[in-house]
Amino acid sequence: MQDHHIVVVGGGFGGLQLVNDLKGAPVRITLIDRRNHHLFQPLLYQVATTLLATSEIAWPIRSFFRDRPEVTTLLAEVVGVDSDAHEVLLKDGQKIGYDTLVLATGATHAYFGHDEWEPVAPGLKTLEDATTIRRRVLLAFEQAELETDPAAREALLTFVIVGAGPTGVELAGIISELARTTLPKEFRNIDTRKAKIILVEAGPRVLAAFAEDLSDYARRELETLGVELRFGKPVTSCSAEGVTIGDSFVPCRTIVWAAGVEASPAAKWLGIPADRAGRAIVDKELRAPGKDDIFIIGDTASVLREDGSPVPGIAPAAKQQGDYVAKVIRAKLAGKPMPGPFRYRHQGSLATIGKSAAIIDFGWLKLKGWIAWWVWGLAHIYFLIGVRWRIAVAWSWLWIYISRQHSARLITQRETMREE
Amino acid sequence: MQDHHIVVVGGGFGGLQLVNDLKGAPVRITLIDRRNHHLFQPLLYQVATTLLATSEIAWPIRSFFRDRPEVTTLLAEVVGVDSDAHEVLLKDGQKIGYDTLVLATGATHAYFGHDEWEPVAPGLKTLEDATTIRRRVLLAFEQAELETDPAAREALLTFVIVGAGPTGVELAGIISELARTTLPKEFRNIDTRKAKIILVEAGPRVLAAFAEDLSDYARRELETLGVELRFGKPVTSCSAEGVTIGDSFVPCRTIVWAAGVEASPAAKWLGIPADRAGRAIVDKELRAPGKDDIFIIGDTASVLREDGSPVPGIAPAAKQQGDYVAKVIRAKLAGKPMPGPFRYRHQGSLATIGKSAAIIDFGWLKLKGWIAWWVWGLAHIYFLIGVRWRIAVAWSWLWIYISRQHSARLITQRETMREE
Repeated sequence: MQDHHIVVVGGGFGGLQLVNDLKGAPVRITLIDRRNHHLFQPLLYQVATTLLATSEIAWPIRSFFRDRPEVTTLLAEVVGVDSDAHEVLLKDGQKIGYDTLVLATGATHAYFGHDEWEPVAPGLKTLEDATTIRRRVLLAFEQAELETDPAAREALLTFVIVGAGPTGVELAGIISELARTTLPKEFRNIDTRKAKIILVEAGPRVLAAFAEDLSDYARRELETLGVELRFGKPVTSCSAEGVTIGDSFVPCRTIVWAAGVEASPAAKWLGIPADRAGRAIVDKELRAPGKDDIFIIGDTASVLREDGSPVPGIAPAAKQQGDYVAKVIRAKLAGKPMPGPFRYRHQGSLATIGKSAAIIDFGWLKLKGWIAWWVWGLAHIYFLIGVRWRIAVAWSWLWIYISRQHSARLITQRETMREE
Repeated sequence: MQDHHIVVVGGGFGGLQLVNDLKGAPVRITLIDRRNHHLFQPLLYQVATTLLATSEIAWPIRSFFRDRPEVTTLLAEVVGVDSDAHEVLLKDGQKIGYDTLVLATGATHAYFGHDEWEPVAPGLKTLEDATTIRRRVLLAFEQAELETDPAAREALLTFVIVGAGPTGVELAGIISELARTTLPKEFRNIDTRKAKIILVEAGPRVLAAFAEDLSDYARRELETLGVELRFGKPVTSCSAEGVTIGDSFVPCRTIVWAAGVEASPAAKWLGIPADRAGRAIVDKELRAPGKDDIFIIGDTASVLREDGSPVPGIAPAAKQQGDYVAKVIRAKLAGKPMPGPFRYRHQGSLATIGKSAAIIDFGWLKLKGWIAWWVWGLAHIYFLIGVRWRIAVAWSWLWIYISRQHSARLITQRETMREE
């Protein structure tokens, strides 16, 4: 009898890896997500910047498990955990019992106590975030074409990206290329090449997680692409009129937030300690302290490396944790010795700058330029799930490469009408 | 000097054909649409039924005219025409002067005086309509998987499509295939094959525009696909609980409206007579009566064939009208003799039933079955704009054909959260 019931909350990289790895184990699994799709987040910025279509990087979670009758997928929102009763609480009031619970609920963007900035400065975590940013960027050019007041037109053609981590750098590079390469011939009243793309970073350099020479290279490439960089001063306010950097005000209509991350409330559900970003502090086996039947993995868990530095919030880290927890569960059920504590193996850091340069830091090998871009592209096609999407994305990229035309320049959703 | 200014309102099939045909003419053109994209409406039902992605059938209008500096594209909503001042009025208060005006503003779905049905029974005219229908269909299965009450579950698994014209038939066929072929292995608590797909038609048969034997064939194919047909009684009410057909009530959570069409308000803007569906009655040269500088084409114009029957509201008709008006404008500007009155040439009627059958009525040739389906598919790939999308759509269809997996099963947009 497969009567050990595992409930997995979250169908991101960690949750999916875990369910995949438990294939053939003597368990029933219920996978719960509040979205019907797994999102390939590393390419989400390409949807926001019109390179890829939404369906190229998001796939229905339940379709992965069609041949696994022991896996039930539920589209539902978890709002709490009753660890005494061993139950997960759903928003509609239903309760789902578990023998083992794995929380892999991810993270969202954070505004450092300024949540009121969100409507004017959307972050990039969901498919809707990406289509919102895409819509705003495209609408800004459209409205500038209609605008007759020069100051208003300049504000419409100013795009501020807050935070120069990988997401900020990737967004700034492609938006600048969009303005300078793809759009100029399509507008008659404005010169889209004069658009200002400003990348704001409170720290001293871009891509601080990379070695300094790679970071320097990325900065030079961004400048070549026409991105204006502002270092050393934080954003102190965001509004519909513009953004204040330190104490200087920049009028702009489009702001994108790529500066902070906040964990989902898994720690709060369990009433256990969290770090500053809200990540639940777990033990060396990735369990909630004192609760042997609850594991927490991915961006919502605070895990340390052997050197005491935090495991980064990236897809490979979440996958390794899913992998590890599957091993622990299998060992426990089989009554075999447990694997040792979780150890993170950093495989490398990657970031792209525009459509032809990237930097890769494997530790033992550093790559930059077009060769890094090709390695990055091939790696990402490889990591996409399924032949169907590998071919579709490869074709989209090939077409963009040949034609310099972006594929997915749609303005959709209701906000369109309101903003018109 | 290219000082003759043509304003074209609407970037559908008619408007685009006209602007294409005026290439090289001594004119300036302003093309205004309230959307940034041209929509390939004949395949819109495939987005609604998860076969194609939004960006595969919608392309930014301004990208078509990047190499035509005399063409200005504006994303704006027209709210009226001042034909004395020769100006088009935009929603934001701006006015755009014209020498010649072409209104190609299309049509929307109509509820025969029951606009209150729209929220529960969306029609299919825009990209948002398609993603709304897609979301509701997919959410119904998701909610049924969670639902414990048998009656509520049955209502969730009942889908009513109102109107058995091409759109209704196409939607019903694919939704039935989705339930019977694609989804069954992915759900654990429900049997999606037991979903009821009901196609309601007030008239006596499906696809009334086709010859009776083809219509009969389509009915049999629909029944083979598991679609339940209800003829001869109109829908008398729609609500969140279900739909009343004649005087019998059918509990259901998903209703799609494919029954009626209403023209955009071009006739009202001009204060000229319209037919029952609101289409402006134009003269034999497709001009607004008494206004020599205003042409009306496509679904918003009421045009008669030589035998007195109306020209159908389909893409080829709109294209022929755009083509014709371009000829009239060229002749007028060159001082050459005008072409004779507009004559519609009906090239044929096509409709698909599910993913492997279609009917085609060329008049001189009737086709049905898989051969018609292939002719239909190749014709539509040919009519798509650009190599990029021809290959993408061909690949999507090929994949669906091989794998029987639908490509674009995304639940997106805010309503998701509310409905959860």
